[in-house]
Order: sequence, then structure tokens, then C-alpha cells
Amino acid sequence: MSTGDDDNHGDPLQQQPEEEDGGGYGDVAVGGGLFSVPDAGVARFAAGLSRESVVDVAGVVSLPREPVRGTTQQEVEIQVKKLYCISKATPNLPISVDDAARSEEDVVKAKAAGEQLVHVGQDKRLDFRVIDLRTPANQAIFRVQCEIENIFRQVLLSEGFVGIHTPKLIGGSSEGGAAVFKLDYNGQPACLAQSPQLHKQMAICGGFERVFEVGPVFRAEDSNTHRHLCEFVGLDMEMAIKDHYSEVCDVVDRLFVAMFDHLNKNCAKELEAINRQYPFKPLKYLPKTLRIEYDEGIRMLKEAGVHVEAMGDLNTESEKKLGELVHTKPFYTMPCSDDPRYSNSFDVFVRGEEIISGAQRVHIPEVLARQAEERGIDVGSIAAYVDAFRYGAPPHGGFGIGLERVVMLFCGLGNIRKASLFPRDPRRLNP
Amino acid sequence: MSTGDDDNHGDPLQQQPEEEDGGGYGDVAVGGGLFSVPDAGVARFAAGLSRESVVDVAGVVSLPREPVRGTTQQEVEIQVKKLYCISKATPNLPISVDDAARSEEDVVKAKAAGEQLVHVGQDKRLDFRVIDLRTPANQAIFRVQCEIENIFRQVLLSEGFVGIHTPKLIGGSSEGGAAVFKLDYNGQPACLAQSPQLHKQMAICGGFERVFEVGPVFRAEDSNTHRHLCEFVGLDMEMAIKDHYSEVCDVVDRLFVAMFDHLNKNCAKELEAINRQYPFKPLKYLPKTLRIEYDEGIRMLKEAGVHVEAMGDLNTESEKKLGELVHTKPFYTMPCSDDPRYSNSFDVFVRGEEIISGAQRVHIPEVLARQAEERGIDVGSIAAYVDAFRYGAPPHGGFGIGLERVVMLFCGLGNIRKASLFPRDPRRLNP
Repeated sequence: MSTGDDDNHGDPLQQQPEEEDGGGYGDVAVGGGLFSVPDAGVARFAAGLSRESVVDVAGVVSLPREPVRGTTQQEVEIQVKKLYCISKATPNLPISVDDAARSEEDVVKAKAAGEQLVHVGQDKRLDFRVIDLRTPANQAIFRVQCEIENIFRQVLLSEGFVGIHTPKLIGGSSEGGAAVFKLDYNGQPACLAQSPQLHKQMAICGGFERVFEVGPVFRAEDSNTHRHLCEFVGLDMEMAIKDHYSEVCDVVDRLFVAMFDHLNKNCAKELEAINRQYPFKPLKYLPKTLRIEYDEGIRMLKEAGVHVEAMGDLNTESEKKLGELVHTKPFYTMPCSDDPRYSNSFDVFVRGEEIISGAQRVHIPEVLARQAEERGIDVGSIAAYVDAFRYGAPPHGGFGIGLERVVMLFCGLGNIRKASLFPRDPRRLNP
Repeated sequence: MSTGDDDNHGDPLQQQPEEEDGGGYGDVAVGGGLFSVPDAGVARFAAGLSRESVVDVAGVVSLPREPVRGTTQQEVEIQVKKLYCISKATPNLPISVDDAARSEEDVVKAKAAGEQLVHVGQDKRLDFRVIDLRTPANQAIFRVQCEIENIFRQVLLSEGFVGIHTPKLIGGSSEGGAAVFKLDYNGQPACLAQSPQLHKQMAICGGFERVFEVGPVFRAEDSNTHRHLCEFVGLDMEMAIKDHYSEVCDVVDRLFVAMFDHLNKNCAKELEAINRQYPFKPLKYLPKTLRIEYDEGIRMLKEAGVHVEAMGDLNTESEKKLGELVHTKPFYTMPCSDDPRYSNSFDVFVRGEEIISGAQRVHIPEVLARQAEERGIDVGSIAAYVDAFRYGAPPHGGFGIGLERVVMLFCGLGNIRKASLFPRDPRRLNP
């Protein structure tokens, strides 16, 4: 709702209230969305407006004798002089904002009290996402998402990283595997990048010592889970390393602690709004992230009992996961110099879920080609990438993380779709 | 080149110098890339290194008696104690950085003096982009690009905009026309978004009053020109407007003046590096952008002579263009309330080229559907978009601009490929 004057927005089709010539304007109090109506003509007009319609109001800001109830602005009201309907909503909204904003807890409570409250399911919300997005929780979620990206950028810029943009349309088959979207590029076979991996490394070869990218990542995976999307926003970085790939972990540490601190400090209102609809416990984190080496983790797990508890989020599911992680690293991961069954890589867990995957990369073309071949990747299709390391390449490493996953896990949303403005999963390509 | 210690970067395959056991290290002066070599063993090793190889050096930083010549660091040198080759470049580089860094002017001058200097053509540069990117000009271009994006974000964030990410995979045919990349999405026909237009407007309908997005934009156009790419980075914004779409122009004004001021003030070194290889005249701009209405522009052009000069960058080519612009606006453009042959839209020119396209959008579903139909767009394929305006939508407008075009025009690069890290044009999908 805007409180501008009666200019016509250049809109030839603006809807005028029917009372226009009847002198029906004036002295309609509008308090943050609720009308208290002393004038019968305007009252009828205002009452006839369908919910979610957009109105322009011209009036005088004043202090109410008593606080206005049931509105967000309680201390101020507007004495309305003129009232226009700028956009009329259909009278039969497919979902109402009030219903969409209700917490599951409230629905359950009401039911227990013998009352029936509408609960809007996740799919219906997404079908009518433009209405669903108007809930206080959703307005907050995407402001938090924006802040996470801002902090990601600011911290990395302050540490000498350059923001880059790598192509999403690539020849060949990206990083291999089935999870790739294919398309025709003016007669050439092409695909959508499964991550900026290959090109962010090529940027390192191109002399940019430290780079980051924020951009879409495409996965044609048929995973219908709470944590997979077919398109998501990747937060990626890559950096030349001087002595050890733990330098990458150090950046991760500083970055995410700064991010979490910032959210807790500056997004209290947003987190509260999210918490009201989707209750969650504040994320616990250490000022310096706990690092556990693979063997240490396994030993701790094997010793079980009190030791497993000491691992916090790890459990037997995690043990299996740990094993998978070590042995299914992508072809560009640098093997460990002491034991090639291990790799120079790390994973970061938040609320028990893997959120960040990082590693030192292979910067030796022969090793890179061999590791690709071993995994059944057609080396010819990534020749430009492998060749990039033939012209001198510094040792380097980096990580990638999904923006939506950070939002989901920080706010304990439980479903990645809640953290994506217009989510894309194996079944959903709309709206 | 790093000057770390002799740790092994966790790399099992590090190349050790042959002289390792021969005591060949010590007292090799390394000054910003040039070696002055008092030790014959290390001298031979250093001389045997192929150009662009990456070395680790351990040594003592010291002040040279005389400034070191031909290097970027002239006041400081390193007394080398140890020297490792971390990454050996192939001895036969397809292009050399020196050749790639040479200005056309220097090649022409040399030729006039009877000397032959290698000139690396644009295609060859792009074929071996990782080497080409190492030139001072390219290092500067992509730092300038990063700064442009930073200022875009900062200014909009300071004005209450929220950064969003809209899907690039969409059902139907995006904004219509032939220039769309199609693909199969788990059995559903899909395409790549030709811009974030539809979804950024839907975000406005979703209650975000002001949004911006930085993300890839895909155009399957077969345009082999100096200013077209098949994939580029769109800087997009959309905002609810209160009284008039000139509010969008006001933001454009503040945004671009802030951006240009920032570049001139904070990127002097980068602009100088670009200027050395690609000489350009600094961009002239007014603290408040000149606005010319369509009729006024046409009248000024028709009056010709001194009046055409007063228009600055406009010429008869532009006149034709002006006409095209008014009559070929996209279907979502709000027609002018006084005369539907006109529209509530604007274009911004920099160095005589259209760079920004903006407008008020239609927020009335019936008008939107009609205008889409008139242009042969299957309204069924954009139903979710049209429906978004049935639930109450504020009048709004916005603009889009290509990041690469801003870089190209600010720096007078003459070819958009120079402003794209790994450009994609109708013929190029590699590297």
C-alpha cells in the first residue's frame, strides 16, 4: 500500500472508485492495512475491495488516541482524504496470505481446541508462490538469503578475492555423470555447468590468485529429497595456496563465523519472523570451527559411547557418509601425498548435514587426465580444462556451497524449497 | 610466483630442481620475476625453466643497491636461498604473455621501423584464454568488472533493494522469439531464461517492493557483432513505483553516476593498465543524465546541423534506432496513457550505444495477455506469469543492462568479448 498522491502512474486503465463523483472520500482512517470508516460511501467502497488489492491513499498522518490494534503500525494512522484502487485482486484468491502465514503449531493447537484452521501444503504454496511470498516468514527468509550473499562477498573481497562470472553454457559434458542438462548450441552439443568448478580453476590459471563466484548451478539429478534442487545458487571460491590446503579451511572458518555473527546481530527481526512460523533453535557454532581428521573421526566413532556424543552431529549414518566422501571425491581432487587412498579435501557439516565441500585441486595435467579417465570421463571433452594446467598453474584449492542450503540450515527450515524463491526440483518447473 | 617456504603443498608430484642434492641453491636474486644469478648451478636451473612456470622461492627480502629494471617491483629484491619449480609450463606456449600484452599501436610502430612484432588476434587470444588473461590489461578489466558489480549492488542495497535469484530454467518459451535455448527438463519442454524479467516482476508481486539480480542471461541469437554474446551477465532491477516511471530513471541516474565516479576514483591503476594496451578516452558524463523525450529527439535530429551536434552521441543511425525502440518494445511494456503508440519506457546511451533498456511494466493481467497475444506469444506458456498479476500487483518498472557492456563502453574496448572472462558467441563454446 502506498500513500502517494493521486497521479495516475501513467496507467491508462487505473480503476477509479465508483464513488468518485459522489464525494465519498475523506476521513477514512487507515492504520497499517485496517480501515476504520466514518464515511459510509468510502466505507462501502473499501469494504468492497477484494483482499490483496493494492490501493493508493492520500491523507494526513496523525496520532491515534489509542494504539491501532491488529496492525504492524500501531502508533500512527492516516486520515484518508482520497482512496484509489490501483490493482484489484481477484475475489477468489487460491490461497490467502493469512493461511499461508500460519504456523503448523497453530493449526495443530486449533484442532486440539476443536477449531478447524486451513493449513496450506508446501506444493500449493509453491503453485501460488507470489501470494505465499507475502508472508512475514518468506519476506524474512529472502532478506536473510540476501544478507548471506552480501557477507560472503564482503569477507572475500576484503581478503583480496575477485568476483568473477564463468559461463554456464559449456561444451562437452561438464564434470561428467548423468546429472547434466544437455542442449543444442547452434548445432554443437552443449550442457549446463554442474558447478563453476572447471572455469573457476581456469581463472586461477589465468593469473587471478583468488576468485569467487555467485551464480546458478544446474543438476539434472532425479533426487526428490528435502535438500536437493535441480537449480540452485552456488557460492564458490578458489584460491592459490602457499603451503597447505588448510589455508582454504581458514578462509571458510573466518567467512562462516562472520556470516553467522552478522545474521544474529543484524537480522534479529527477520529471524524472529521466520521463527514465528517455522520454529527453530539458534544455530550453535564455535568461534573457531572444530576440525576432525578422517582417521580421528572413524576412531572416535568406533570407540562409541561417550566418544560418539563428543562428536556432536556425527552418527553411524555419518560414518558411512565419511567413508563415501573419502572414496568418491571428484576427479579434480588432489590425492594425499602420503597415501593416495586419501585426498586433500574436507567437508563441513552444519546441523548434522554436509554443507560445504572443499579440496585442493590437481594442478598437474597428467594426473588430472588420468583421474578423469579412471572415472570414465571423456578427456577429449574437457581438453581445454586439462590444457589450462600446461601453461604453469599454482597449487590451489577452494570450495562450493549452496546458498539455499546455508539459509535452510541456519534457519532450520527442514526443506530447501523454502529457501528458494522459485524452486526447481525434478517435478517442478513452475512458476 | 610465491615466496613461501619449502613445504610441499601436499602435492605428491612436485617437481624438484635437478640440482637439489648438488647444493645449487643460494644467493640467486629474484626481482619481481627477473633473475640475476651469481650461482652457476642455480643459474642453469633457473635458465632452464620454461616461461610461465610457477616457482616457490625461499629467501631474504633486501634493498637492491640500484633499482631493479624491467620488473614491477623495482625497490625490493629477494636474495634466494631455495628455489623450487612448483609447476612446469610447456616449453612451447601457444601464445606468449608478452605478445598478448602488446598494444596494436606498438605492433604498427614496430612495423614502420622495419621490425616485426607478433600480434595475437582476438580468436587466438580466446582459444588460449588462460594465458591471455595474464596480461596487465585483462587483469585490470576483470577487476573493473568486479567493481562495477559491487557498486551496482551497494547503491541498490543502500536504497532498500533486496538481492534475489530467479530461476534460469523455465517452462514454456521465456519471452518468446527465436533467440531461446531449448532443453529437456526431465521430460518437460524447458528453456533458458532470456532475462530475469518475468520472475523479477513476480518477485514484485510477491511483496518485495524493490529487487535486483546479478545473473546469467541466455540469448540463442545468431548475431556475430562486436556487442552480442549468447550468454552474458545481466544486472537487473525492478521496483514498485509511486507516481511515475521516471522514478526508475532517477535510480539509474544515481546508480551510474556513482559507478562511474567510483571507477575513476578507485580504479585509476586498472584503467591505466587497460589504457596502455587498449587506448581509450575517459568517458564523459553529466552529474545528472540528460533526458530527451522521443519527440524532442526526433525534432532535434530533423532540425539537423548544429542541433544534431547538440545531441552528442545521436546520429542518423540512432534516429532509425530510436524509431525501432519505440515500436518494438516487449509485450510487458506499459503503453503510454495518452497515446498507445508510445510506451512508458526509456533507453540509455553510452558512447553512442544503447546500454540500458528500462520501462514501466504492465501490471494488469488482461492488458498483459492481450499484448503477448498481439506479438504471437502463446499466453498459455506464460500463464503463471500473467496470473501473478491477478492477486494484486503494484505499478512497477525496472531496467536491465549487460555487465560486459558496461565494462566495454566505460573502457572503450570496442569488442564485448574482451569484457567476458570466457565469452560465448554463436561460434564459440570453448574454452
